[in-house]
Amino acid sequence: MDTREKLLAAAARLFHEKGFTATSVAEILERADVNSGSLYHFFSGKEELLRGVLERYHALLPDELIAPAEATTEDGVERVFALLALYRKGMEITGCRYGCPIGNLALETTDAYPNIRPLVEANFVQWIGHVERWLAAEGARFPRGTDFHRLAQLVLTTMEGGLMQTRARRSLAPFDESVAALRHYLDLLMGKKGKGNAPSRTTHRRPSAPRRNSRSARGR
Amino acid sequence: MDTREKLLAAAARLFHEKGFTATSVAEILERADVNSGSLYHFFSGKEELLRGVLERYHALLPDELIAPAEATTEDGVERVFALLALYRKGMEITGCRYGCPIGNLALETTDAYPNIRPLVEANFVQWIGHVERWLAAEGARFPRGTDFHRLAQLVLTTMEGGLMQTRARRSLAPFDESVAALRHYLDLLMGKKGKGNAPSRTTHRRPSAPRRNSRSARGR
Repeated sequence: MDTREKLLAAAARLFHEKGFTATSVAEILERADVNSGSLYHFFSGKEELLRGVLERYHALLPDELIAPAEATTEDGVERVFALLALYRKGMEITGCRYGCPIGNLALETTDAYPNIRPLVEANFVQWIGHVERWLAAEGARFPRGTDFHRLAQLVLTTMEGGLMQTRARRSLAPFDESVAALRHYLDLLMGKKGKGNAPSRTTHRRPSAPRRNSRSARGR
Repeated sequence: MDTREKLLAAAARLFHEKGFTATSVAEILERADVNSGSLYHFFSGKEELLRGVLERYHALLPDELIAPAEATTEDGVERVFALLALYRKGMEITGCRYGCPIGNLALETTDAYPNIRPLVEANFVQWIGHVERWLAAEGARFPRGTDFHRLAQLVLTTMEGGLMQTRARRSLAPFDESVAALRHYLDLLMGKKGKGNAPSRTTHRRPSAPRRNSRSARGR
């Protein structure tokens, strides 16, 4: 790992664990095992490190989250829930701590650092773009004119709002219940399509087979 | 205003504008126009001020947000959207800055301050409780067995996740689209009730009259 990447990885980890403001440059140097001369060779200071961290998240999203979700299933709707399950796994492993690194930085830094805000936005836009593409690929299962961008935005809203409550309550329940409600909404939407289309299956055994088995909508 | 309240109001404002970590005790004293002796008479330090701020939000919620939403309409479902509209108004006034003070503190402080987390949780629980009560009061319009707690949780998830994106993108669109999708979900749910029940009306002219006018579901 080169020095620049060591610094970015250490900064990303610390910003995620402690927040941007609470992290000192000295801690980043210690975590990265790099001296300050090397840091200032690459970065003018902590704000430029934050820039680099957000660009790094943007670059890593396809390999670290999108590809694993896509590897789970061919079904675009189920890919959405596979992505959400990756965030859940993260919360499970950490005892409901830390949450979404981009979401945290969104709330902590976007007002104070105007140059940082577009980088947070770019991360959200990319995330929504993948989800929208997955949902649109299943377009035939949704009512005509369904707004997949809006749906994809709701998926991100559900992930971020759910993770926030899961952190605050130290329980996976708020995230799980929010995701279950989102699934119920998508099931109702797909159920409205009519023509015998049943709500999406939760099993992935025959992802490309016609979906005929009805599953009673959840939460009733 | 007594000194303690002056300090809490100033701290709440600064934590909302800048975040907890980025706010210094000196700034709180200056904003409150109080000397440090008075502060330490009431609070041992910044963390105890944060405690007081969260207790204050908890105490103020009924008068500052719940009552105004209830004054808007008798319709429990519309009260939910009236509450969401109050948050939207806040974002509109501030140019999409600051967001939800509790949500910000949830992400910034719950991992680092174990004694603070239950106070954040209490704020979320109270908020959800009011929304659940409003929705349950309209129970006859929803399918039998609808989980109103889960729905109320989704409402908070939508508010927090939507506000986060609205801050990051400096646009009301993500919040508006998330809320529109939430409304569409509730409309679909109420539509499933059958027996001629149409989706909820958005106008409030006859809140207690039977709802017969159909309105085409949004977002199709």
